[in-house]
Amino acid sequence: MTGPVETPAPPYYAVIFSAERSGDDAGYAATSARMVELAAAIDGFLGYEHAGDAVGITVSYWRDLDAIARWRAHAEHLLAQQAGRSRWYARYGLRVARVERQGFFTRPAGAA
Amino acid sequence: MTGPVETPAPPYYAVIFSAERSGDDAGYAATSARMVELAAAIDGFLGYEHAGDAVGITVSYWRDLDAIARWRAHAEHLLAQQAGRSRWYARYGLRVARVERQGFFTRPAGAA
Repeated sequence: MTGPVETPAPPYYAVIFSAERSGDDAGYAATSARMVELAAAIDGFLGYEHAGDAVGITVSYWRDLDAIARWRAHAEHLLAQQAGRSRWYARYGLRVARVERQGFFTRPAGAA
Repeated sequence: MTGPVETPAPPYYAVIFSAERSGDDAGYAATSARMVELAAAIDGFLGYEHAGDAVGITVSYWRDLDAIARWRAHAEHLLAQQAGRSRWYARYGLRVARVERQGFFTRPAGAA
């Protein structure tokens, strides 16, 4: 569970992963934590946001499509993708989108 | 809480709203439900996904930037945006992104 993350000025890319879990959670938490660690080490990773659980959305942000291609093809990530389809997920949608505009809000300190 | 939604072939647009709530939830649930109803009635709305609670991500999908402009400027939505900043959210990020690729997975029936 991560809150909103600030990213550099657009353009850059977002990978929107929206999933419904299967109920088979064996190995999920450890692999999930490992994937965050691996993604963060890839050149061009800008940050990620995650919310939810049985129904979850993860959005990761990337400098360019080359960085996303490196992440998609990472050997350990390929194994995790396979386990996701055979075990952890009942359904998912995956989108690659070019971020064109962004804005951030932080509640002023001391606001009611 | 909605699972993954299928959308027409890209290109189209995503609005990625990632938020951390303030803890003041008065009126939030009713307004949130009303916003879904209003958005769905706008020409060019393609669907939405939501996950999480205190930390939440909502992604809505739109045919084009004009549809997003109509949604941003809707009078009731403007009031909700204002209440969001003054009451419901501690922090949020909002991004508009052009979806370029998508894929969907549904677990085969009877899979282990």
